[in-house]
Parts: sequence; C-alpha cells; structure tokens
Amino acid sequence: MAAPTGDIGLIGFAVMGQNLILNMNDKGFNVVAYNRTTSKVDNFLANEAKGTNVQGAHSVQELVAKLKRPRKIILLVKAGSAVDDFIKQLEPHLEQGDIIIDGGNSHYPDSIRRTKELESKGLLFVGSGVSGGEEGARYGPSLMPGGSTAAWPAIKEIFQKTAAQVNGEPCCDWVGETGSGHYVKMVHNGIEYGDMQLIAEAYDILKRGLGLSEDEIADIFVKWNKGVLDSFLIEITANILKFKDDDGEPVVTKILDKAGQKGTGKWTAIAALDAGTAVTLIGEAVFARCLSAIKEERVRASKSIGGPPKEPFRALYASKIISYTQGFMLMRETAKEVGWNLNYSGIAKMWRGGCIIKSVFLGDIASAYQKNSQLESLLFDNFFNKAVHKAQPGWRRVIAQAVLWGIPTPAFSTALAFFDGYRSEIVPANLLQAQRDYFGAHTFRVLPGKENAKFKAGEDIHVNWTGRGGNVSASTYNT
Amino acid sequence: MAAPTGDIGLIGFAVMGQNLILNMNDKGFNVVAYNRTTSKVDNFLANEAKGTNVQGAHSVQELVAKLKRPRKIILLVKAGSAVDDFIKQLEPHLEQGDIIIDGGNSHYPDSIRRTKELESKGLLFVGSGVSGGEEGARYGPSLMPGGSTAAWPAIKEIFQKTAAQVNGEPCCDWVGETGSGHYVKMVHNGIEYGDMQLIAEAYDILKRGLGLSEDEIADIFVKWNKGVLDSFLIEITANILKFKDDDGEPVVTKILDKAGQKGTGKWTAIAALDAGTAVTLIGEAVFARCLSAIKEERVRASKSIGGPPKEPFRALYASKIISYTQGFMLMRETAKEVGWNLNYSGIAKMWRGGCIIKSVFLGDIASAYQKNSQLESLLFDNFFNKAVHKAQPGWRRVIAQAVLWGIPTPAFSTALAFFDGYRSEIVPANLLQAQRDYFGAHTFRVLPGKENAKFKAGEDIHVNWTGRGGNVSASTYNT
Repeated sequence: MAAPTGDIGLIGFAVMGQNLILNMNDKGFNVVAYNRTTSKVDNFLANEAKGTNVQGAHSVQELVAKLKRPRKIILLVKAGSAVDDFIKQLEPHLEQGDIIIDGGNSHYPDSIRRTKELESKGLLFVGSGVSGGEEGARYGPSLMPGGSTAAWPAIKEIFQKTAAQVNGEPCCDWVGETGSGHYVKMVHNGIEYGDMQLIAEAYDILKRGLGLSEDEIADIFVKWNKGVLDSFLIEITANILKFKDDDGEPVVTKILDKAGQKGTGKWTAIAALDAGTAVTLIGEAVFARCLSAIKEERVRASKSIGGPPKEPFRALYASKIISYTQGFMLMRETAKEVGWNLNYSGIAKMWRGGCIIKSVFLGDIASAYQKNSQLESLLFDNFFNKAVHKAQPGWRRVIAQAVLWGIPTPAFSTALAFFDGYRSEIVPANLLQAQRDYFGAHTFRVLPGKENAKFKAGEDIHVNWTGRGGNVSASTYNT
Repeated sequence: MAAPTGDIGLIGFAVMGQNLILNMNDKGFNVVAYNRTTSKVDNFLANEAKGTNVQGAHSVQELVAKLKRPRKIILLVKAGSAVDDFIKQLEPHLEQGDIIIDGGNSHYPDSIRRTKELESKGLLFVGSGVSGGEEGARYGPSLMPGGSTAAWPAIKEIFQKTAAQVNGEPCCDWVGETGSGHYVKMVHNGIEYGDMQLIAEAYDILKRGLGLSEDEIADIFVKWNKGVLDSFLIEITANILKFKDDDGEPVVTKILDKAGQKGTGKWTAIAALDAGTAVTLIGEAVFARCLSAIKEERVRASKSIGGPPKEPFRALYASKIISYTQGFMLMRETAKEVGWNLNYSGIAKMWRGGCIIKSVFLGDIASAYQKNSQLESLLFDNFFNKAVHKAQPGWRRVIAQAVLWGIPTPAFSTALAFFDGYRSEIVPANLLQAQRDYFGAHTFRVLPGKENAKFKAGEDIHVNWTGRGGNVSASTYNT
C-alpha cells in the first residue's frame, strides 16, 4: 500500500463541510473527505471537487489510512451525539498523538469533557469555533481552536492558511485550554445575535418611524458602512435591502417576520445568567426572536391593542459598543472562574475577518486590549469612552422617540439601561435588599460611609422591620 | 409503646422550618420536629415551642415512629443533595403509601425525578412551593403542592389550614403532576424578581428624577397601595422607606446597593430561554441584580463616564401587567411541552395571599382566567386590555423621560418593548431572516400575501443573494 498523502481528513458534508474542503484544497492541503452517506462523497468528487486534489473515503478506516501522521481529522457534523459517535468510530483506528478536531457548534462543556477523555487515551482533541457561514468556509473563515495545547503546532499551518486574512494576519490563533475555543465561538454567536437585533431595530425605526423606503434605508446603511460601523453585517444589510424580487419589490418585505435560532444565542444567555454577568443585549436579542416567533399571536394582539429621530446611527453605534462590552465582560468572568488565560486582543483579531461579525470595530477592540490587556471594560478605553460620549445625546433621543412612537427597541433600550446602570455609583438595589431582608431575613450590607454601631462594615445585617419577625436570618432558605 | 400521635413530621430548623412548625401547631396539628443538629431541637422545644404540642425527635427513626399512618414528612432543608440524603435516610423506615414532602426551593426537574423514583418504590412524593418568607411561614404561607396525586387527599386538610386565607379561601390547592408545584413556585419567584425590580425603578425615578425624599416617596407608595397596585411588596416598600435609623436617616439609604440572589430568578430566566418564551422582565430583573453586584466597577465607571415624569405610577402598573402576562405565557408553554394541565385561575388564587407577590392584582388575574381558562395572554382580557390602554401614554412619557435623564429602567423599558413588539403585526425579524439566509443559507418563509412562483407558502426558501454562494441550504450547521 502506498504511503498516505492526506494532510487532513474531514467528516461531514453539509454546506460548511463541503466549502471547507474546497478552501483547504485551494490553500494547498491534501484533504481526505468522508461522509456517512457515501454516495455524497462520490457525487461531490464528480462535481464540486472535480479537478481538485481532494481524495474520497468510503469508510472511517479508509479515511484514517489515507492520512499522514499525526493524523488530523476535522468533524463537521451536527453538535451532540453525532460528535461522540464519530469519535468512538475513529478511536480504534488512531494512534498516540493523532488529533480529532471538532469544528461544529458544540457546547463548550462537551469540549471540556472530550478533551479530557481523549487525552486520557493518548489522543489529542481540538474544539474549534468555525465562523463565516458558507462563504467564510469557502474563502476564509474565522477559526477559533482550543483544547489539547500539544495539537496546536501540528495544525497551526493548515488552520492559519485556511482562515481569513486581515492585513496579512490570519483570523486564527490558539485560543486556550479545553473548551475555550467553543466557548469563545459561543460568545461570538451571542454577539452576532446582538448585532443583528440592533440592525433590525435601526431598520424598523427608519422604516416605521421615518417612513423611508428600503432603497433609502439601504443608502443609509451604505453610508454607515464607510465609518466606524464598517462591518459585514451592515454591508449585507444594505445588499439585502436593495435586493429586488422580479416584480421590483424588495425581497426583504416578502420574508415572514419569524426569526429562527439554533441555540448558541440561548447558550450565551444561559452562560451569562450562570456567570452572573449582565449580558442583557444578547438576552434581549434571543427574546426578541422568541417574540417574533409567535407571529399568529402578535397578529391577533395587533388588532386588539391599539417627529422622527435624527440619529438612529448613534443609537446603533453606542448600543453596539455596549453589546461588545458585555460580551468581553462575560469572557473575562468565565475565564476567571474556569482558570483560562484568554488573549482578548487575539480574540478580537480572530473575529476581524472571516466570520459574521467581522468589522472595523473589532480592530478598535483589539487596539484597546493591546494597550491594556487587563482592561476592565471597553467603556474604560479612551477610544470607546469618547465614542460613547459623543453618541450619547442622539442615542437617548432615538430611544425616547421610539418609545413615544411605539416602535419596539428591546436591544437599544437595554443597552442604554445597562449604560446608565453601569455609570451609576448608586443603583436602587438598596431597596431590593431592604425588601429581601424585610420579607425573608436575607440580610444586607451597609453602604460605605453609612457605618454606625449597629451597621458594621463587612457584616450581614438583619433589621427587625416590623417588630414582629424573629431575629433568625435565612441561611438555607429563600422565598 | 404508645400509639403514634403525630399528624405530620418536619425536618429542617432554618427560619422557614421553625415558623412552619409553629404555624401548623397553631392550626391544631401535632407536629413532630427533627433536625440533624439535635441540640437545636431541644433548644427550640425549650424556647420558641415552649407550651405547644410540638414533639421533638432525635433521629429519623424516632421521627417516623411518632407519626400516624400514612406518614407525612415535610423536608425544609437546603435544595439539592440534602433533600436526596434525607429521602435516603427516611426510606428504610417508611411503608407503602407514606408521603415525603419537599417544601424547599428545589429545582422542578429534581421533583419530577423524585416523584418517579419514590412512586416506583410504593412511596408518595410531593414537591411543594412554600412562599411568604418568615412571616408567611409563621402565620400563613402560599402553598403550591404538586407530585403524586394520590397524596393530595391525605395532606389536603393540613396544607389548606396552614396556608394563608383570602376571603375564606385557602392560598393552597393541588397544582398538578410531578414537578409542577416547584415549577409554579419557580415562576412565582421569577415574577417576584420582576415586581421588585419594577418598584426599585419607580423609586429611582421618584428619587433621582423628581428629587423626592424617602418620606415623600413612601407617601406615594402608600397612596398607590390603595388602588390596583395594592400588594404586599408595595406595602413593605412604603414601610421600608419610612423606617429610620437612630440618627433619623432612612435605613434604606444606608443599605449597600448590591442585590443578592439565590437562583430561582435565574432558573426562571433559563426556563424561559429553554421554552423560547420572551420572559424579558424576569431576565432583565436578574441581570439588573448582576449589574448591581459589580458595585466597585460601577463606582469607577461613574467617575469616568459622565423636567420630571408625571406618571411613574402608570409605568409601574403597565409594566407589572406585562410581567405577569409573560409569567403566565411561560407556564402555558411549559405545560404544553410537559403535558401538564395547569389551573391558571387556581394558581393566581394560590398567590393572592401568604406569599411575597400577594396582591389585589392577582385577584384580577384569577377573574380573567375564570372567565376564560384558555386565555392566550392577559392582554386579551378585557380588564387588563383597558388598564394597559389607559396607562399607556404615561408609561411612555416616564420611560422617554428616564432615558433623557439617564436613569436606568431596564425592566420598564423591556416591558414596553415587549408590549410594542407583541402588538406589532410585523416586526423586523424579516431582516434577521434575510441576514441568516444571506450568510448561512438558513432559509426563510414567505410573508402571507407575498407568495409568488418562487416564494411558496410553507416552503423553506433560499435566495442566492450574492450570486456567489451555492444552493446548498444549511441543514446541520449554523454559524
């Protein structure tokens, strides 16, 4: 049998898998491709992959046999049990130091588990975020690998050459330990949810508020795409708004307003709740999709319930700053808990190209963390601090106007509420604490400067508000 | 040995346990009390329970021996492994038909599991929500039992007599199958989070916006408590605001503005995300607590980032209507998925007294579901529909003004955004769907009335927006 010539194997022939195979082939790597339904392999070789160096495999064993050592095999299959199934199928054919890479949208706790399991068997595991949709996969995605650190030197060249390039730098770097690659991808997707919801709200204000046509709104987005908001999503939004059906009507006005979702936005919101981090924009973006989904109920409600803002741009820009501030706060918090050392500047750079949220904006974030890798929040960075101050009056006027008009702006509003809460030395949580102590003896802490003989700093204080309650504080029970 | 005389056993001596023992004793039931640290039992009998009929037990075996059959034992211990530990300790001493009741704040999936496990062993399990804090436990809580239906006749009298009474009706009824008691309690707690956050925002606007003193604000809450907002939480808020420290300053102004939380609000938000229901108020209320918790960061931010509303009442009332609308939507959705038949009017009645969110308002909700048990949403009910219409102009002005003032109103804002989204026949989710199809071939559906030869109703449609992308739609992969 001839010596194996495959540089990398790939399993899974959905849209991302096929495009990634062709992309890696273009970059000079010999790809061995396998799919459970093997007719798809033959079909692909005879059509899309015709004339390329791509090799097909009709079994897991054949796939492994055609790969050089250490073998590198990317799974691009449905997240969940399918990943574990293929790992189990591959294991008996692999040897010490071989690398299984999961390029699907796996939930990061699964990747933490898989790294540990495979390392205990002498194999290496990489959980890699892959972003960029079909076009990114085909011409250069953002790749976010993490897992077995020993695997990185072996896959670095393939990954960095396959990834998108921005200013000569690949949108791919080693993220970190165990599940951190998929974690960062999850946060990326959450931020993507936020970006999309913000753009949708701006569109709604321009259309329902200002009464502009899709063409006029497209022109506005084209203009916005030339400045600080320069990004893939603004660009495609302009393209979408201009895209006409045969009858001359914009296709976007023919699309049912029920947004789908596949779970990563939800995971980010749950991760934020678990971490106790106020990632409200992603939360609202997920819930806005939920609300859009109950179209029939909205239609019924719309029947039963019965001066334009000048600066929707400022509302969009300032809200976007808040959304990214929250996303990076979430990563900081989880990294602290799990013990990861995340390179925030590197993460921003990985997202600059290839992926869905790619933007000029991410370069500004990379700069902020390059200046200060310990940056507490983007709002403390000079560039973003100035930007948000400048945008503030317009941002407030847009939301106030939308509120009076009755145009829903859940993400704009929560962004501003977060901003106003964040810059508040005192928030009314003292009242919440008083209520909790009043009804449940949950205790409170004294506000600095207000200490006295009864209210001592650092102590859990309980007040007998009614004169009736006992002095037992709640230790194991909450109401 | 004499025949056992105990009507019910109780394990767990934190504030709720002690008060519930005394309450059940007052109602004429013979309670046998046990605690892991048995010195607490002796101490309790010699002090708080002196002169009552409460019997002590120094072991699980003694506790069981002192109970009449079928034995009923309430656990009021920390949710989690402690509940399973005590169940394991009790099992060998119990007989067919004996009932273990978990009155702690258990997560409802645990109660689903425990019901099944104990029923398979011939025992009965009840997971009961208990709300009302220490005072409720002592004088009459809201009790929300669910689990083994066969247990209800045996515990009904004790539960309904121990519970709060409103207009002669007990705030306790059988909720339903397996984990539904704890599920309903979880939603109750989520709603409680929302109520508290709404009141805190009203306080903030009255104080920071209108510049009123705590005494003046207390007078406003006293007035509000006489109408549709009549509720325990408004009442205690007035009491809290009037409560002075020895130096004459309101205690509330001395309380550190970092809100604690023990998890049930978070669980509700996660349950809402899992169910795909836009329960945004509870989400924002949880996140507002998270934001309050990072006080030190807010103080730094407050240094680096630099005409009154007439109707805060309307903002509070309308937002509260939205919060309860969302809470009942969540229960409806989960009931549909899990196959529970929930009695919504009964749930509202259970919450009318005893518990933290007790209010006149809940009577209006009970009426709404009594008129129509299949009510889709409270906003379709005539009473609430009128109420929200009347409150609407003031609600909008308050939020618009808070936005211009820079006072954070995350819950008010999200309530209005939900309302405006809910009453929108078209929301801009068509643009989100276009973006998702553009970058990820996720497909979309056609808007009714816009069907044509290419855009057929009921089909998953993919448009080749750029002329470059393929025609493969994403089936197993999302970006």
